[in-house]
Amino acid sequence: MTTAGFIGLGAMGTPMARNLMKNKVMLFLYNRTKEKASSLISEGAELVESPKDLFTKTSLIFSMVANDEALKAVTVGPKGILETGKPGCIHVSMSTVSPTLIHDLQIEHQKKGITLLSAPVFGRPDAAAEQRLTICVAGEATAKKTVFPYLQFMGQKVFDFGDTPEKVNCVKIAGNFLILANVEILAEAFAFIQKSGVDPQAFYTMLSESLLPSPVVKGYGKRLLERNFKEGGFRMELGAKDINLLLQHANLAKTPMPVASLLHNRLLTSLAKMRGNLDWSAIFVSVFEDAGV
Amino acid sequence: MTTAGFIGLGAMGTPMARNLMKNKVMLFLYNRTKEKASSLISEGAELVESPKDLFTKTSLIFSMVANDEALKAVTVGPKGILETGKPGCIHVSMSTVSPTLIHDLQIEHQKKGITLLSAPVFGRPDAAAEQRLTICVAGEATAKKTVFPYLQFMGQKVFDFGDTPEKVNCVKIAGNFLILANVEILAEAFAFIQKSGVDPQAFYTMLSESLLPSPVVKGYGKRLLERNFKEGGFRMELGAKDINLLLQHANLAKTPMPVASLLHNRLLTSLAKMRGNLDWSAIFVSVFEDAGV
Amino acid sequence: MTTAGFIGLGAMGTPMARNLMKNKVMLFLYNRTKEKASSLISEGAELVESPKDLFTKTSLIFSMVANDEALKAVTVGPKGILETGKPGCIHVSMSTVSPTLIHDLQIEHQKKGITLLSAPVFGRPDAAAEQRLTICVAGEATAKKTVFPYLQFMGQKVFDFGDTPEKVNCVKIAGNFLILANVEILAEAFAFIQKSGVDPQAFYTMLSESLLPSPVVKGYGKRLLERNFKEGGFRMELGAKDINLLLQHANLAKTPMPVASLLHNRLLTSLAKMRGNLDWSAIFVSVFEDAGV
Amino acid sequence: MTTAGFIGLGAMGTPMARNLMKNKVMLFLYNRTKEKASSLISEGAELVESPKDLFTKTSLIFSMVANDEALKAVTVGPKGILETGKPGCIHVSMSTVSPTLIHDLQIEHQKKGITLLSAPVFGRPDAAAEQRLTICVAGEATAKKTVFPYLQFMGQKVFDFGDTPEKVNCVKIAGNFLILANVEILAEAFAFIQKSGVDPQAFYTMLSESLLPSPVVKGYGKRLLERNFKEGGFRMELGAKDINLLLQHANLAKTPMPVASLLHNRLLTSLAKMRGNLDWSAIFVSVFEDAGV
Repeated sequence: MTTAGFIGLGAMGTPMARNLMKNKVMLFLYNRTKEKASSLISEGAELVESPKDLFTKTSLIFSMVANDEALKAVTVGPKGILETGKPGCIHVSMSTVSPTLIHDLQIEHQKKGITLLSAPVFGRPDAAAEQRLTICVAGEATAKKTVFPYLQFMGQKVFDFGDTPEKVNCVKIAGNFLILANVEILAEAFAFIQKSGVDPQAFYTMLSESLLPSPVVKGYGKRLLERNFKEGGFRMELGAKDINLLLQHANLAKTPMPVASLLHNRLLTSLAKMRGNLDWSAIFVSVFEDAGV
Repeated sequence: MTTAGFIGLGAMGTPMARNLMKNKVMLFLYNRTKEKASSLISEGAELVESPKDLFTKTSLIFSMVANDEALKAVTVGPKGILETGKPGCIHVSMSTVSPTLIHDLQIEHQKKGITLLSAPVFGRPDAAAEQRLTICVAGEATAKKTVFPYLQFMGQKVFDFGDTPEKVNCVKIAGNFLILANVEILAEAFAFIQKSGVDPQAFYTMLSESLLPSPVVKGYGKRLLERNFKEGGFRMELGAKDINLLLQHANLAKTPMPVASLLHNRLLTSLAKMRGNLDWSAIFVSVFEDAGV
Repeated sequence: MTTAGFIGLGAMGTPMARNLMKNKVMLFLYNRTKEKASSLISEGAELVESPKDLFTKTSLIFSMVANDEALKAVTVGPKGILETGKPGCIHVSMSTVSPTLIHDLQIEHQKKGITLLSAPVFGRPDAAAEQRLTICVAGEATAKKTVFPYLQFMGQKVFDFGDTPEKVNCVKIAGNFLILANVEILAEAFAFIQKSGVDPQAFYTMLSESLLPSPVVKGYGKRLLERNFKEGGFRMELGAKDINLLLQHANLAKTPMPVASLLHNRLLTSLAKMRGNLDWSAIFVSVFEDAGV
Repeated sequence: MTTAGFIGLGAMGTPMARNLMKNKVMLFLYNRTKEKASSLISEGAELVESPKDLFTKTSLIFSMVANDEALKAVTVGPKGILETGKPGCIHVSMSTVSPTLIHDLQIEHQKKGITLLSAPVFGRPDAAAEQRLTICVAGEATAKKTVFPYLQFMGQKVFDFGDTPEKVNCVKIAGNFLILANVEILAEAFAFIQKSGVDPQAFYTMLSESLLPSPVVKGYGKRLLERNFKEGGFRMELGAKDINLLLQHANLAKTPMPVASLLHNRLLTSLAKMRGNLDWSAIFVSVFEDAGV
């Protein structure tokens, strides 16, 4: 039986880990808050005390944590996985983190002979549970080959973005930009439609069945229509983190992105108005407020 | 055998008229430039001298012309269809024109007892030829019922937007906004991706197969990737007309649309740089120029 | 004693007319609402029934009306001044109207041999009362020479913009843009300063005494500081008219003006939120709302 | 005779130091590149080896360095002034640096009993040479009183922003924003004016003599008119640093600043197009390029 370590048992990590277990992978878990591991333990996983314990039990670790700080803590931090990792070990970072951090971490991993792959995912917790994630992966070819079956246990589609791990983090933040930009343009269109006296439901039907039948438009269009910014959401604060990451890297790449700047300002307004805990599609509320609706 | 009139034999009108003929509709044609009717005449249609001749031969007319001025000319202008239309006649305006014009024309049609339906279409000439247009229709219910089979001869999907003709023109310009806004956000994302050293083709594959698999993203993403702004295109100048229509009506509806304002400025730059004859997706060029690519 | 006609006795026109009278100009007045002329009549002016009566009593008319429609009405409309004007007559249009209208009106004036000068003003009613207006003038040279002393009765400074009347209307709308743009950038700076915990009064003092000591910054900065958007104001609705004029002409001139687009959206939000009667500096409120203040 | 230390002999620091010397202040100098001190040494100043040497010779140090890194190096870095500073010593930081850095440095200074004042300046090298700088100061009251005469040797006006040093750095970056925002709006107005066929020189005269007679509008308006983006300039790259500082702090303060976002994108375009060495008013070039001029 194959084994693996898994770090980060949040709303995304837990169903992803469970899908590995369903596919006969024996998991060793680490989570800062131990309680969150209890359901997976009852299903057969084993909890360890520190990230560094994982590479003493397996040579493959997946991590899915909230941000740069958390990823640094479990890797290069005290009792991090780099303390015990050896040549031949593989660490698959699946978090949405900064390309710069992945670049720096890869250098640290290499010093120990560990291979760092980056494999961020698109999809919400429900998609994670149903094994419908889209996974983008980059890094060293042999390690990718080894890891590929595991990624397929977690996601519906896996896309390969070459040999340089941090590049795929640019893909992830560009993708998140496109999602939120879709919310903005849908919100502007719906505000116009509604103030023009057109039935928004009919407009949504046309868009989702014909003009723009992507899951993003269907899903967020429905949320807008129903003013549903709470349930099963992706928190505004996390969205703000991602757009900030994008703008920082666009700044380094000397790429002006005016719609991204606009989204940044929408998010600032939303946070200033204490909507940080709503789903990030709640930038829609600002669009409608600006239209006096 | 059923009959109908058809006004406007441009890149869109010609294949739309042909699809009616393929479905056993005997067509009477009017076009300002007679030569453009020749192929359809050779296929069995009959040309008339003036728009007003059409309602002497049939009680149903479709029109597909370039702009407000052209539609006014063939309706309320000298020798326009209102000179001969009678109670029971139906005029289906399929052009992308101003909601205000449709509102005003409806009043003029009503004075003669003619029913005006508005039925703008989404799709390019190739989609028109292959009967794959999306048609949005609004107007009086009985007339819509009469016209519905004809619309199905021309389009794959027909969406009903209620009783008020001009409302569906708001839908059309909001839809065009969403299409061009997709070009903008794709262009920003591609500029970032390219300047970050990621393979744009791989990014496109991921978007079109997983994250945003709509025809708009697939089609325009491909154009961007191939720097193809010419073939089979929707001219920038017409796009500028449509975004201007949108902004005028958003102004009336007191709805700020910042991304639409951004698109307006992109189009102005494109026209100022003499790109008015390219496909409107060439606003992409400005996005890349701004990024120094 | 010299004579002149004066059309338009609003908040601006009345003090301007009074300053002509103070300088020994006998005035014949026309105003749509007769009551507004009463104070000037008590000071010695004479009221006429229709605009056309003016050119029967004098060969020089000044007009200061609210918008394009009003200026059309008193010139080319029924009983307008063009009905009686003769070669040698001069009409000085001082209103903020569309360059296109002035272009068209000049042609109509020329047909009658009347010279049209355009001479829009910068300044609020208090500046008009105190003869502190800035007046920009354009048109035929001899007529300008004749009119120059009269303009100096009304304004502190007169700037000559050449021979083509409508050009100076571009100057006026560009100037209004700069004023409102100053409100926007001041508002953004004050929002940042306030949310950073800096004393806004100290910031204002530094700006107005050192960094940006223009009357615009001093005046609007004070309004922002005092949240005073009512008294003696320039109504938001008129400001929206002016920015619309600007954007229309920038569109014709194929000049993208992103800050003007932003102002347009601020004004739409303000109108949508029923602030149309406040001073146009109330776009400041939107800036602060967006910052959650 | 009074003494003081001075760190940072760049284009600004050198004339500022010279003005202290002209006012009978004996200066001890530190600069990373020793050669830059030669002219002041020939005028009577004394050079030291390390920043830490300064507080062994005087209890008052002024610093004027390029950025956060440089200020950290000369204070908390090895051989920095904190190694030798004692209670009663005063350090006046005059650089444009991050409010966060000043906040952190103040804590470090306090640990040694040193008082940190922040006193950033507005003005270019020519203004520094002519003692025409505007200086904004914040920090502990007694120390400010001590330092005040020295600030007056360097600047024309000194504005007090209270007790918290880092607040005045918010003032500085907000002020720089207002300056660059003035360039943007002037550039938009000039582009419109020029494309409308109006004489830009006449427009400039009217603005600088009447509507917006501030040094910023006069100075930058002249640069725009003359397409002079080189001589005596403030480098684009430094301007980009300042707008980045502003956006970072606006982000922390949850304050959307859409014109600042626009400026950020203008600067990115300018850097991407290799204009980083021009005066920052060269964002004007982008405005004109967008207008096809």
